[in-house]
Amino acid sequence: MRITVINPNTSVEMTRIIGDAATRAASPNATINAVNPDSGPPAIENHYDEAVATVPMLEMVRDGEANGVNGFVIACFGDPGLNAAREVATGPVIGIAEAAMHAASMLATGFSVVTSLERTCVIAEHLVQRYGMREHCRSIYACEIPVLGLLDDHGAAWERIVEKCRQARDTDGAGAIVLGCAGMADLTQELTNELGIPVIDGVSVAVRFVEALAGAGLATSKHGDLAYPIPKNYTGEFARLSPGKR
Amino acid sequence: MRITVINPNTSVEMTRIIGDAATRAASPNATINAVNPDSGPPAIENHYDEAVATVPMLEMVRDGEANGVNGFVIACFGDPGLNAAREVATGPVIGIAEAAMHAASMLATGFSVVTSLERTCVIAEHLVQRYGMREHCRSIYACEIPVLGLLDDHGAAWERIVEKCRQARDTDGAGAIVLGCAGMADLTQELTNELGIPVIDGVSVAVRFVEALAGAGLATSKHGDLAYPIPKNYTGEFARLSPGKR
Amino acid sequence: MRITVINPNTSVEMTRIIGDAATRAASPNATINAVNPDSGPPAIENHYDEAVATVPMLEMVRDGEANGVNGFVIACFGDPGLNAAREVATGPVIGIAEAAMHAASMLATGFSVVTSLERTCVIAEHLVQRYGMREHCRSIYACEIPVLGLLDDHGAAWERIVEKCRQARDTDGAGAIVLGCAGMADLTQELTNELGIPVIDGVSVAVRFVEALAGAGLATSKHGDLAYPIPKNYTGEFARLSPGKR
Amino acid sequence: MRITVINPNTSVEMTRIIGDAATRAASPNATINAVNPDSGPPAIENHYDEAVATVPMLEMVRDGEANGVNGFVIACFGDPGLNAAREVATGPVIGIAEAAMHAASMLATGFSVVTSLERTCVIAEHLVQRYGMREHCRSIYACEIPVLGLLDDHGAAWERIVEKCRQARDTDGAGAIVLGCAGMADLTQELTNELGIPVIDGVSVAVRFVEALAGAGLATSKHGDLAYPIPKNYTGEFARLSPGKR
Amino acid sequence: MRITVINPNTSVEMTRIIGDAATRAASPNATINAVNPDSGPPAIENHYDEAVATVPMLEMVRDGEANGVNGFVIACFGDPGLNAAREVATGPVIGIAEAAMHAASMLATGFSVVTSLERTCVIAEHLVQRYGMREHCRSIYACEIPVLGLLDDHGAAWERIVEKCRQARDTDGAGAIVLGCAGMADLTQELTNELGIPVIDGVSVAVRFVEALAGAGLATSKHGDLAYPIPKNYTGEFARLSPGKR
Amino acid sequence: MRITVINPNTSVEMTRIIGDAATRAASPNATINAVNPDSGPPAIENHYDEAVATVPMLEMVRDGEANGVNGFVIACFGDPGLNAAREVATGPVIGIAEAAMHAASMLATGFSVVTSLERTCVIAEHLVQRYGMREHCRSIYACEIPVLGLLDDHGAAWERIVEKCRQARDTDGAGAIVLGCAGMADLTQELTNELGIPVIDGVSVAVRFVEALAGAGLATSKHGDLAYPIPKNYTGEFARLSPGKR
Repeated sequence: MRITVINPNTSVEMTRIIGDAATRAASPNATINAVNPDSGPPAIENHYDEAVATVPMLEMVRDGEANGVNGFVIACFGDPGLNAAREVATGPVIGIAEAAMHAASMLATGFSVVTSLERTCVIAEHLVQRYGMREHCRSIYACEIPVLGLLDDHGAAWERIVEKCRQARDTDGAGAIVLGCAGMADLTQELTNELGIPVIDGVSVAVRFVEALAGAGLATSKHGDLAYPIPKNYTGEFARLSPGKR
Repeated sequence: MRITVINPNTSVEMTRIIGDAATRAASPNATINAVNPDSGPPAIENHYDEAVATVPMLEMVRDGEANGVNGFVIACFGDPGLNAAREVATGPVIGIAEAAMHAASMLATGFSVVTSLERTCVIAEHLVQRYGMREHCRSIYACEIPVLGLLDDHGAAWERIVEKCRQARDTDGAGAIVLGCAGMADLTQELTNELGIPVIDGVSVAVRFVEALAGAGLATSKHGDLAYPIPKNYTGEFARLSPGKR
Repeated sequence: MRITVINPNTSVEMTRIIGDAATRAASPNATINAVNPDSGPPAIENHYDEAVATVPMLEMVRDGEANGVNGFVIACFGDPGLNAAREVATGPVIGIAEAAMHAASMLATGFSVVTSLERTCVIAEHLVQRYGMREHCRSIYACEIPVLGLLDDHGAAWERIVEKCRQARDTDGAGAIVLGCAGMADLTQELTNELGIPVIDGVSVAVRFVEALAGAGLATSKHGDLAYPIPKNYTGEFARLSPGKR
Repeated sequence: MRITVINPNTSVEMTRIIGDAATRAASPNATINAVNPDSGPPAIENHYDEAVATVPMLEMVRDGEANGVNGFVIACFGDPGLNAAREVATGPVIGIAEAAMHAASMLATGFSVVTSLERTCVIAEHLVQRYGMREHCRSIYACEIPVLGLLDDHGAAWERIVEKCRQARDTDGAGAIVLGCAGMADLTQELTNELGIPVIDGVSVAVRFVEALAGAGLATSKHGDLAYPIPKNYTGEFARLSPGKR
Repeated sequence: MRITVINPNTSVEMTRIIGDAATRAASPNATINAVNPDSGPPAIENHYDEAVATVPMLEMVRDGEANGVNGFVIACFGDPGLNAAREVATGPVIGIAEAAMHAASMLATGFSVVTSLERTCVIAEHLVQRYGMREHCRSIYACEIPVLGLLDDHGAAWERIVEKCRQARDTDGAGAIVLGCAGMADLTQELTNELGIPVIDGVSVAVRFVEALAGAGLATSKHGDLAYPIPKNYTGEFARLSPGKR
Repeated sequence: MRITVINPNTSVEMTRIIGDAATRAASPNATINAVNPDSGPPAIENHYDEAVATVPMLEMVRDGEANGVNGFVIACFGDPGLNAAREVATGPVIGIAEAAMHAASMLATGFSVVTSLERTCVIAEHLVQRYGMREHCRSIYACEIPVLGLLDDHGAAWERIVEKCRQARDTDGAGAIVLGCAGMADLTQELTNELGIPVIDGVSVAVRFVEALAGAGLATSKHGDLAYPIPKNYTGEFARLSPGKR
């Protein structure tokens, strides 16, 4: 089974972290291909970055689709363009926020999200609502670490992340932690040891969920609003993105 | 007051309809500039079209912003990229679905949405949820008319639209109709006459709401998650979209 | 366009503040008539005051209607009798809480309400629920200032209001403030300057929204539950309020 | 224990039906006093009627309170002025819609409301939302019988009511029926026999619930927003309604 | 009227407290039979205890049913097996959490739950959701007292319970307190005196509500999902629990 | 990895179907042990059956736990005793309704449930609510086939199941079908072929999700309300179920 894990930002270093986490998590019969676009924002930290990064992400789904990939992971906690990617794809497509929140709801009766920047909290909040997790999500915390700051300075980031996780566990009664940034993937094991509760990295779980769905013979519904995009000719620079007949 | 009304698809004919509706609706002291990108999908009929069309739409907000425009209307019923556009803009930005649903909730205790294609209904549904209109929205109907079909064949479209509006009014108890496609803007008056209940074209109301907010001295919050995008250098073809320091 | 702005309490001083705010906000082609009943509570501070004040408010809507007024604003943050007023009126009727919350949801992804008395918070809370603003409202604060205390002692009131607004902005992540009392209307500009985020006075926005709806050719739905009241003869002292044939 | 059952409309005939139902339902140690105002609408069929009728209803709560009554029932399915009445009262105050819906949720996992006029359905709907019954309420039906028509023509009304009840039971899976009009109280037993499922008359249950709460030593909370109204002098014709010091 | 009050745990001492509260609350024409199983957990402090205790509780409903009992109270705050018990029973069956929350919503616009152990809070939370009390419940507090600790050490328990009740009243604006454990029943009066707001013991209210429903001629719906269990032969040790033909 | 799949009813034939589906779905490195109790209901068709069957199901989790099993599937669509089982287990525990609904939400924007008996629909409905799937679930249909009837008469059952699935797909816009009974597991492939949309058997997906979670190094949270049951001595016949120290 071949799974493409897409980091929608252009940071090669973050793609490496994501790819490592995905490879560690994948079962032996899955092959992980971690990719990122060479065009767009180097980090996704607000709605605008997210909107722009969605287009090259979709191009990568198109590429994967052309290469017969079996499933996709969108490795950015805002799950940008998830339904658009599902229209393009034949196999399952899972966002890391989606995967992590669903997993958390199966392991604890309440979870908290610990993410990078304050201004991305509202994105997490909207996803909580969209995935029906309002009753399961106890709190959402930001550590005020820029996404790429995670790469530069794990020491200071670590302290702040641990502090917020403890607050979630001890004050809000969270039974599990959802890490709110793909760049935190390599902290998962250490945080689990520190906190004694499940700490969930969406990349790992999303890879496993794609395997689970595909392994159970399931694929994205091609009936209704997730059917392949209606063929049409786009104009201008985006002409290359025109959805063809399938 | 200068208001830019953005049709995010590339159909010049639809931009004309939208521009006409906007101009008719605007008060004398507002100047309407109806625009569309020359790159992207000619009609927005699914999640994928919407995701791609968001980028040129954002470019137009950037352009408007550079020209000191006072507010923006996003004239596609899916309200694509609304929060991203708000980050970029200083003045108010309103989506036509948002405007129409809010207006409907002020004129009737329940409304129905009558839109173009079946597969876009889920987009309307997600917006109903996001705008807190679950208790106000009685039903969502599709007329199975492709977006551009509205332009070609008003006769057949008319019959189907009227039928769904009647069903909403008589069976579901809708006190108002929200038209679910910018391309229906020029049917508004005729439908109102036919049905005897408020028929709401989002373009008209969105223009008026931008005027209302700006007129009351209000602008998009620049605190928190709608602050200007964090400056950073994008790479590749999207480098031109890099959010600068403001 | 003639708009009647009804202060449902009997305080002439508060009507003056409301009328000033309404006039400042109105566009040049709108004429504001700010009125209050001479019968009923001098301030609306609980459910009972609100219920009693609804009747003279409705009489004023009847008067306005008889005089061909184009729209109404109910200038009390509890939006008392809103649907009853809509039954009586032909043009749009908007409550100031309704207007302010809807506006806030278009300018920020989250807002907070700062109101006068603790015991009115539950009224704001019920309106948040009714208008579908549960996901947008971050918090509701009371300043423990009696409604008329705002008139007497702006100094002390000011301190407490600013403190609560700061808490909303800095602790709860509110991107906008909704002022929870018509009597705060004249503090709006100063608070906006102090806080750097949109501070929304419902009177101003409601006036503008009535203009917007009427300007877009929209009126209250006269189909279904907002149709004119079924004609019948009331008895006793309320006989004068009997809804006639229209 | 003395319970005042208030029919907020002026129909003496309906008060008789309500009083009979209340008396039949009451336990031996309760005394029922069924009353109606002599001022206001003869039937409550829309928001406006409801708003006006609330004031004389509140006067009757004041009267009851002055006479040391132990509890109140508001016998109109819209539960008009419920929280205002609770502020005035010391003992429990229960609305018949509230009582019937709560009772239904204890006897079946889903119920339907069968009411009089189409245009009152939205009132029932708002109450369903307010009482947290969204998951329990399967459907709301109107029989298109004017409230006083129930008194004139039980034959035709009967047929239509039974038809809607059957539809609720057989198509929507309702396990119980909530009668949506105080004037239907005397049909309860016959409908129960006909349908074989609990048919709930709010008057009967509300009386019993007032007894239950008072019997368990409970009274309306006088802390917070249901405390006695803040004393103040009302002006004009409503001066007599001024809330005094208690 | 004969009412069986079932303490689903095996603590005879707690059954005594529950029986006393039930008897004090019952009206003169009701006979209370407080019982507990001799098999199962001595206290119910988590999901597992609750699941096991449900079976002997259901046996007691079967026994009561065989003896023609008129109604049942399930006297454990998690309301274990409520719908299963309703299938077995002919008369009303009410859980004490259900009764207390419904009563609270009739006496105050907001209530808080004060319960025993932290880990049972999630059970209360799920019930709040199930009974539609999300908008009414202000907070849920645990006092970290083991259920049976209430029996041993009222002094220390008292202090902690009062502290949490005060916090609910003064910080969260709760107008009433719901006691979250049947073992707190005998503290109700004293707490009411201390706090000056309604303190609601579910046992008392549940008994009164069973009386109210049965007194109003109402019984559990035997249509649909609460009909008597479909007859079938169970195997093994649970063969004795086989639902027979009725 | 060893996974115990528990059929909580005593039907050996159904356990065989479930075991076959589980084994087909499992990845090569998982070993499936499909078991059923020898005590309790032969089919679970209402709340009462479910409550009784929970106890032997929990015993099997205890057994599995004693044998170091890595995870559990509860193979009954009501997900009976899910949280209780999670308290007992160390590894992941997943219910088949939970698994199927979560999977469906990842493959389509809306799904429908097609289940066996009408009276179990409410159980599915409660799970939809509990898992936050209100916005994703389009409809719930019963085929009026007794659970064991599926085993006896696949021909007639097939027709009715296909009919309801078609209705869900064509009328309600469901993009995927969730099979609402473990006994339907062996129809999955054939239904998928017939309908052309994902048809989801909870047994298959639950097995795969247990593998996914355990494979990603995740286990049930042992902090808070899913910690091991508090040790205590049960009395009577259930003494053997006493939770010990771990």
